[in-house]
Amino acid sequence: MNKPENLRPPCPPALLDALRMQFGDRLNTTQAIREHHGKDESAFPIAPPDAVVFPQSTEECVEIVKLCAAHHTNIIPYGVGTSLEGHVLAINGGVCVDMSHMNSILAVNVEDLDCTVQAGVTRKQLNQHLQHTGLFFPIDPGADATLGGMSATRASGTNAVRYGTMRENVLGLTIVLADGRIIKTGGRSRKSAAGYDLTRLFVGSEGTLGLITEVTLTLYPQPEAASAATCTFPTIDAAVRTVIQTIQLGVPIARCELLDAITIKAVNLHSKLGLREAPMLFCEFHGSAASVKEQAETVQAIAREQGGMDFEWATRQEDRTRLWQARHDAYPACLRLKPGGRAMSTDVCVPISKLAECIAETNKDLRGTTIPIALFGHVGDGNFHLAIMVDPHNPADLAEAERVNHNVVHRALGMGGTCTGEHGIGFGKLDFLDAEHGEAVSVMHAIKQSLDPHNIFNRGKVIRTKQM
Amino acid sequence: MNKPENLRPPCPPALLDALRMQFGDRLNTTQAIREHHGKDESAFPIAPPDAVVFPQSTEECVEIVKLCAAHHTNIIPYGVGTSLEGHVLAINGGVCVDMSHMNSILAVNVEDLDCTVQAGVTRKQLNQHLQHTGLFFPIDPGADATLGGMSATRASGTNAVRYGTMRENVLGLTIVLADGRIIKTGGRSRKSAAGYDLTRLFVGSEGTLGLITEVTLTLYPQPEAASAATCTFPTIDAAVRTVIQTIQLGVPIARCELLDAITIKAVNLHSKLGLREAPMLFCEFHGSAASVKEQAETVQAIAREQGGMDFEWATRQEDRTRLWQARHDAYPACLRLKPGGRAMSTDVCVPISKLAECIAETNKDLRGTTIPIALFGHVGDGNFHLAIMVDPHNPADLAEAERVNHNVVHRALGMGGTCTGEHGIGFGKLDFLDAEHGEAVSVMHAIKQSLDPHNIFNRGKVIRTKQM
Repeated sequence: MNKPENLRPPCPPALLDALRMQFGDRLNTTQAIREHHGKDESAFPIAPPDAVVFPQSTEECVEIVKLCAAHHTNIIPYGVGTSLEGHVLAINGGVCVDMSHMNSILAVNVEDLDCTVQAGVTRKQLNQHLQHTGLFFPIDPGADATLGGMSATRASGTNAVRYGTMRENVLGLTIVLADGRIIKTGGRSRKSAAGYDLTRLFVGSEGTLGLITEVTLTLYPQPEAASAATCTFPTIDAAVRTVIQTIQLGVPIARCELLDAITIKAVNLHSKLGLREAPMLFCEFHGSAASVKEQAETVQAIAREQGGMDFEWATRQEDRTRLWQARHDAYPACLRLKPGGRAMSTDVCVPISKLAECIAETNKDLRGTTIPIALFGHVGDGNFHLAIMVDPHNPADLAEAERVNHNVVHRALGMGGTCTGEHGIGFGKLDFLDAEHGEAVSVMHAIKQSLDPHNIFNRGKVIRTKQM
Repeated sequence: MNKPENLRPPCPPALLDALRMQFGDRLNTTQAIREHHGKDESAFPIAPPDAVVFPQSTEECVEIVKLCAAHHTNIIPYGVGTSLEGHVLAINGGVCVDMSHMNSILAVNVEDLDCTVQAGVTRKQLNQHLQHTGLFFPIDPGADATLGGMSATRASGTNAVRYGTMRENVLGLTIVLADGRIIKTGGRSRKSAAGYDLTRLFVGSEGTLGLITEVTLTLYPQPEAASAATCTFPTIDAAVRTVIQTIQLGVPIARCELLDAITIKAVNLHSKLGLREAPMLFCEFHGSAASVKEQAETVQAIAREQGGMDFEWATRQEDRTRLWQARHDAYPACLRLKPGGRAMSTDVCVPISKLAECIAETNKDLRGTTIPIALFGHVGDGNFHLAIMVDPHNPADLAEAERVNHNVVHRALGMGGTCTGEHGIGFGKLDFLDAEHGEAVSVMHAIKQSLDPHNIFNRGKVIRTKQM
């Protein structure tokens, strides 16, 4: 965890006046609203923006950007505030742009399996809208995040092992640049070799290069059939070996999640389940009826060789939901491990051959710790999370969390992995970004400098303020 | 087709002396070698570089870049010269960097389904090397291109409908920047949210932002089973409707290619086949034995509803190869349509719902033309090619080719498509890049300016020289 830099200039009253003139009561400076927008799901202290504005169109976003640019004031794009590394915290003050009024689904092209939405549409809203089309949007980071926010953070989640992340599923973007110009990146064709891949540059840029106002997404046919399976293992290692063999065999598994024994214990407590308190895999298979049966049988055979027990599988929606309940409850359940505490979430991702070793080493570290830590994640991608339960007012807890985080990240980097598979950098992982990418960070800096020379977009995130 | 800009500064003799000192006879300035490196598979006139140098390591590439940078001399990265829009032509003079000596496969991580190669390794060389691992690299642009070149041009091809393009399959790159620094982008983990996606920025940048020296790639398990199918249709429209329904049903088709009647005629002539001279679809399915059978049956049922005839399918390697022979022979066969001529290849990609209309409108245009033009392509992606057969010394042919190209590109753009699905911009499609991306081109320009301020990398490609 990096300390936020303290470079907070006051927000010019003239800017607030101009915004109020333009947006009336859609500019909000009340303490409650500012505080609400000054936190995310991390354990960082609240850092409220100076004001929150609620645009309703790309053109209104242009107005906001031009006004903030004229006053060199920081702009923080805001979806629903579910990021995990302080992405939306106003550590350098500024104006928060809440995209929730821009929640129209602009087009659904059923034949082309794509859609275009305003940035404030959430993924559940989109899937609700798609319900009767036979299509769905698979990326599921857990929270009901906005599609603009998910694009900005390169979100991922349980389905990524089959459907990819936002990197693979954003076809195009509408973006307001730092000088107020609007650009459209990408397009609606499935592939293109036309120039630099600006879409991918903005996906994952965490609001630091421009303001995403519209997103064009790939959709998928709802699978003809789906099945879910769960299995308990004597050791995490046995569970992970099952995953590795499944991936290496080319089984097109749709979801593949691991919960460790501590997480299962928390879930039992939270949801009054009687699961065996041992590492547990949760799988889902999509395809034709014959194919999902074949996939489940293949994975069961692999699991059995690894000592898997209590294998259950289901095809009906309600049975699948019941099987997966423990996974869905994992995050709220973990909060029970430390009443009144907060979860400091970290995530790493490693080449899958290193996953068992990385988890085993991490577990050794966790056994010696003084605070509850749950381990779970999207192991099909080599990605796992730690939910480190801390009392945010206890310096000893925070120091211990920082130590564990530092260890797991450097362990992952040492194994050819990344400091974050899906949570992003925010300001919480700035040091780790340097450790991972070294000289390449200077190229990120050059790009930031060229597209946002006055550093008005989400100052202090991804790129250090002092570098600008 | 854009005219190449004429901004060719002489190559300083001091630079050639310094390169000769460093590289000995691995610096070549003979006319034959220069001319060989001054052409690709387009119909553009030869534009030889001033010299060709053959580095053997990333460190030697650094030396080349530093020397050329010191003399403000253009650097043209070169794989095997199979690009189609003039990418490697030395229209602004300079030093060609032929990567063919950098052809080592550095690592194959079978458990992780990835590998790292030097940029000069070709895709067939890699697949040969992988033969006994149970893995393969699927991207197949037709030519046996280098993996560095394929990365630089965001190559694609027949397998993209299932496995994606180079955009989805490059995990990381080693790059020499314009000031000679080496960076590594990406990594070996399957996903990462760590900072700007530099890998995707360099993939498809056509050698204009840096010199790619190493590539880390995703590999796939060789499918347990594969089957191939071919089918002839009364109209192109019927063939395309078959494809659209197949994609919309979510059939995980691995390849899906269309040849129009003119192409089939050429193939019959070239390969002495007796195929019905009508539009023909070529499909391939990968998966388990049960799954490939189910996929082929599904597509056959759809094809039948659309009036498909002569449906054949095969699972054994030799039978599949025989079925696909016409597709593999399409390009050389088309050259027969105009003895002594060259193919001006263009490609566009549209949302699949527009594919039938786009091809139908294009066909109307082709019926009125004076030169042979074959239409074929990767229709599963909405991507098709025209091979426009010209006498490169006949201005009327070239003007007609330019007219047809202009029409098909603007037709695709009008339908929400792209001016090139996979061939890239080179200098041949600079105007079309503007037409497609408008204001966003200025962002590409800003990025070029920030990473290559003295415009030493592949000057005049993707970004206009006069903009720098």
